[in-house]
Amino acid sequence: MSKHKLIYDTDPGVDDAMALVFQALHPDIELLGLTSVFGNATIETTTHNARFLAGRFAPGVPVAQGAAAPLKRLAPQPLASIHGDNGLGNVVLGDSEHAPLDARPAHRFIIDTVRAHPGEVTLLAVGPLTNLALALADDPQIAPLVKQVVVMGGAFGTDGVLGNVTPAAEANILGDPDAADIVFGAPWPVAIVGLDVTQRTVMSQDYLASIRDRGGAAGQFVWDVSRHYEAFHRQSAQLKGIYVHDSSAVAYVLAPHLYTTRSGPVRVLTDGIAVGQTIQKPSTMPVPAPDWDKRPECKVCIGVDADGMLALYENTVCAKR
Amino acid sequence: MSKHKLIYDTDPGVDDAMALVFQALHPDIELLGLTSVFGNATIETTTHNARFLAGRFAPGVPVAQGAAAPLKRLAPQPLASIHGDNGLGNVVLGDSEHAPLDARPAHRFIIDTVRAHPGEVTLLAVGPLTNLALALADDPQIAPLVKQVVVMGGAFGTDGVLGNVTPAAEANILGDPDAADIVFGAPWPVAIVGLDVTQRTVMSQDYLASIRDRGGAAGQFVWDVSRHYEAFHRQSAQLKGIYVHDSSAVAYVLAPHLYTTRSGPVRVLTDGIAVGQTIQKPSTMPVPAPDWDKRPECKVCIGVDADGMLALYENTVCAKR
Repeated sequence: MSKHKLIYDTDPGVDDAMALVFQALHPDIELLGLTSVFGNATIETTTHNARFLAGRFAPGVPVAQGAAAPLKRLAPQPLASIHGDNGLGNVVLGDSEHAPLDARPAHRFIIDTVRAHPGEVTLLAVGPLTNLALALADDPQIAPLVKQVVVMGGAFGTDGVLGNVTPAAEANILGDPDAADIVFGAPWPVAIVGLDVTQRTVMSQDYLASIRDRGGAAGQFVWDVSRHYEAFHRQSAQLKGIYVHDSSAVAYVLAPHLYTTRSGPVRVLTDGIAVGQTIQKPSTMPVPAPDWDKRPECKVCIGVDADGMLALYENTVCAKR
Repeated sequence: MSKHKLIYDTDPGVDDAMALVFQALHPDIELLGLTSVFGNATIETTTHNARFLAGRFAPGVPVAQGAAAPLKRLAPQPLASIHGDNGLGNVVLGDSEHAPLDARPAHRFIIDTVRAHPGEVTLLAVGPLTNLALALADDPQIAPLVKQVVVMGGAFGTDGVLGNVTPAAEANILGDPDAADIVFGAPWPVAIVGLDVTQRTVMSQDYLASIRDRGGAAGQFVWDVSRHYEAFHRQSAQLKGIYVHDSSAVAYVLAPHLYTTRSGPVRVLTDGIAVGQTIQKPSTMPVPAPDWDKRPECKVCIGVDADGMLALYENTVCAKR
């Protein structure tokens, strides 16, 4: 098969880092570039981390720096309690060569890369969707040239929750709800991998230890980078393990059959007490809904073969090379 | 056991009628009165229907007429496509004696009855919550005197939907979202029986035919009143049978063990594209949420033993008397 050409739009972030390792090591993925965005940490930190990650695991892949703040709001506080003070679980990053920084802002990098490979590029976005919204604003014509947009974000309630940072909002979407509403309404194919499936997919400590023991230097890094993150999950959610957020979006690209999806337009609430909530009108719903009906359908993941996803990740990181 | 003293706040409505039969025939329920409210039809129609239902199935139980419109909005259009032009599936109501109309408005009837039986009255509300909000406004001190408030309304997504009349709203809550937000925030015990469980509980045509054949005159009425409603479900949702909305709230009163509940404050969105949405902050959620945190916990039904519920209804209507 031809490889999946990806631009990875990311705010590393511990699980962003684990998902980068997954992408870098999977033979069916060709990384065209990383674009950084604020989110789990400041844009300076996430860009630094993206350059470290690309330099160490995906040599030659460029990094373009993206938005420092949402379209219409102030940047949120860095999530140091979750991702550590350095955004990567406080692991010492060492002195490996950092990836080169592209001269273009992230949204221009996205536009140019999509135009260079019309119909071929998947945008894999696992942070606030500001860069993608800026790309659409700058060059709306790129939308039909994108193969697909796969977003880690949002929550639709099927797993019992509508959010993780508020009762109604998931962190990436709350990071820039205006951008998310634009991205979900644009004429490109969108798949949304939200808490409905990512919180049903848990990497236990034993699972992570196995990756550490069998995955070489990459496996050791996955273990090291996830220690602080695992402690956060244990303390906040009494979870023995970690939710698999960003890597689930990678798995969706590689193996969509692992996911059950539901089609229908998706809106994002941009104000009020539920700001950041994602609401789909399922295509089977028989009533008119003018605020949804003129928008393109998105695929929302509402079910997952979690064991299959976990096997895919482990087999990728621990493959003989 | 002592009987459940109920005030049934209702907008009949086909499933309201089926739930009234359930209450009237169950030996553990003592109906203190019906209070009517706009909703499935106009207040004139729902009051007329409530008086017919009480007169035929619960002789001696009074009816008090309630609100004609929501607290702050215009009354919605009657749902004739669902409940028929007369609100009761277009069945001919015949000339049975109608229940007497209490001279008081519904909210005063509620206040007086609660004060006459402090700590004993369950308010079973299966329409827009306007009457309950008006009672609270007129006499806030009744809240701690109410045994419990059981509401059919809302949706929390665990069954895959957040609403039935919009992508985000269930009909009763959308009928008066301001009233619902008041009722869910008052200091009385609230249990919410929403689409998460009512759409998982389906009366098939065979089930309804069995009730017709075994339930005497009441069973025949349940069959007759549900013909139009069943056709609506078949046409709109491709469902072979009917969702059990209001009768599920009765079942919750009688047999709460049939339901899995989740505790936590509930807010209702009162404006924007998701107006009428119900959002709970589960008590286990570890993040602060100022718009929820100062409010009392409600119990939200997120799971149901549907077979148990259906058996309870059938056994009640078809019991030897």
